[in-house]
Order: sequence, then structure tokens, then C-alpha cells
Amino acid sequence: MIVIGIDPGINVTGYAVIEKNGTSNRLLLREGGVIRGKGFRTLPERIHEIYRNLKDVLEEWKPDAMSLEEIYSHYERPKTAIIMGHVRGVICLAAAECGIPVFSYSATTVKKTLTGSGRAPKDQMQRAIQLEFRLPALPEPPDLADALAIAMCHGFHAETF
Amino acid sequence: MIVIGIDPGINVTGYAVIEKNGTSNRLLLREGGVIRGKGFRTLPERIHEIYRNLKDVLEEWKPDAMSLEEIYSHYERPKTAIIMGHVRGVICLAAAECGIPVFSYSATTVKKTLTGSGRAPKDQMQRAIQLEFRLPALPEPPDLADALAIAMCHGFHAETF
Repeated sequence: MIVIGIDPGINVTGYAVIEKNGTSNRLLLREGGVIRGKGFRTLPERIHEIYRNLKDVLEEWKPDAMSLEEIYSHYERPKTAIIMGHVRGVICLAAAECGIPVFSYSATTVKKTLTGSGRAPKDQMQRAIQLEFRLPALPEPPDLADALAIAMCHGFHAETF
Repeated sequence: MIVIGIDPGINVTGYAVIEKNGTSNRLLLREGGVIRGKGFRTLPERIHEIYRNLKDVLEEWKPDAMSLEEIYSHYERPKTAIIMGHVRGVICLAAAECGIPVFSYSATTVKKTLTGSGRAPKDQMQRAIQLEFRLPALPEPPDLADALAIAMCHGFHAETF
């Protein structure tokens, strides 16, 4: 089963494509990267750029599921959150167009699933990701690390056979 | 010049297509309606439905401009605002794909442009819209009235020749 995890952002959107192998139950990292909306002048142009790049990734990997962080109620910066909502919207659209079901998990659930603690700090999360995917270094930048985390979370929760 | 005004909403998205004739300087209502996201179970499905219907409208009318309400910083219901952001995101995407420039105006500017007062109540706005487009009744539902208002606002501000 192929899962894509995405961390939406108007400047940088991180994505991670992982595979869960039913027999070994291990997760494998197949591709991880960032899509940059930066460099485009207007919000519609940035969103268009993110959408087009993401569609390419979806068409290449044909994931069985997409995993996103849940929308919550309290953001420190409401305007930034609404702009993130714009990006999350075109990501959901791309999933719907490709027939990929979308799953969402709270930040607490992601942390708890990966480390056992819903309040795990950032470096503990990075180490959990590094260990699972046997990475030579801690995952960077944060957008990619967050995409890996949300993909892993769905990978652990989804039943495969 | 054809302008489309849109009031984004996950349940109901209002849209209004108007024409500004350079010689008379009057605005004409060409089409107004609502797109219903309701009836679809998931957020991605709803967004997909709104996007597809809006694309049809854009391809039919080929507007020269799209007019939207500005994103602001303080919403009463942050979660609802982020979901509205999802819809606004796919609307901006549709505009970018069709090469339509997007303009945005604050609620105060819209009110002031239509009535002379940035604090005009709802019924005063409805009457201004009714008068401009010579409608037989006040514009309804609110989603359509808001779409008409934002389209009118751009119609008044845009220079035509």
C-alpha cells in the first residue's frame, strides 16, 4: 500500500510517499520532497504551481491513501491558517480528482503514534522518523519531516494484508 | 468587460456574472446562481463538486476578472474560516487555470462602494444591488447577494473604455 503524507504551506509544501508492505509491516520511504510556491507573485499562481506539481506526484505514484493533519480550531495566526486552508483545499481537490481517499489525524495523534507521547518534542519526532526509515540523518526541512510524520501515522494505523 | 463575483462556502457557494459596458457605464447581470457542495459526504468530494461546477461557469462566460472578498485576520469561527479557505483555494486555482486575474476587496470597501457607507446593513446592500441590476425583488439567498455585491464592487472600480 502506497501512502502520501502532505504538509500544506503556501511557501513550501512538504510531501512524502511511503510504502507499507503487508508481510513485513515495515514502512519504506519511496520519495520525499518539497514543492515551492515561492517565486510566484500571486496567491492563485502559487496555488496553481503547488497543485500542478502535486498532481504529477500523484499520477506517478498512484497512492492508495492521502494523509493530512486535521483542521483544528485554534491557530496562532488565523490569516496564515486560512491561506494554508487554500493550499489544503487544492490538495484535497487533487486527491478527489485522482480518486484517492483522504485521512486526517490530529497533531497529538501523530505524535503519540510515532513516539508513544502526544506531547513529544520536535527532535524526538525526527528521531522516530529517522529510525523507521533508516535515514542517514535527521529529516529536514521541517515541511518534509512533517509530511513524513503524517504519512507514517497513517501507515501505522492502516490495516494491510 | 465580464466580471465574476464569488462568495465561497463549503455548503453553498454563490456566484454572479456581470457585464460592464464601457459606454453606458452601467452594470448588467448576466447570470447569478449558487453551487451546492451539500449532499456530498467528504470535504474533498464537496470541493471537487464546487470546482467542477465553477470551471463550467468560467468556461462558458470567460470572465475578464474574478472578484473575491479579502481574507481578513479575525473570524468568529476559525475552523469554518479555514474550511472556507479550502473552497477559496480551489476557486483561485480555477481562475489561475483559466488565466483570469483575481481581485479582492474588504467587506468595508464593498459596502462603501455600493452604498457610500462602510457600515451599511444587509438590507441597504440588497437594495443597492436591486437598484443597480433593476431586479424585481431583493436578491436572495445571501450567498448570491454577496456574490453580486463583490462583483459590483469590482465593476465600479475597474476602468473600462
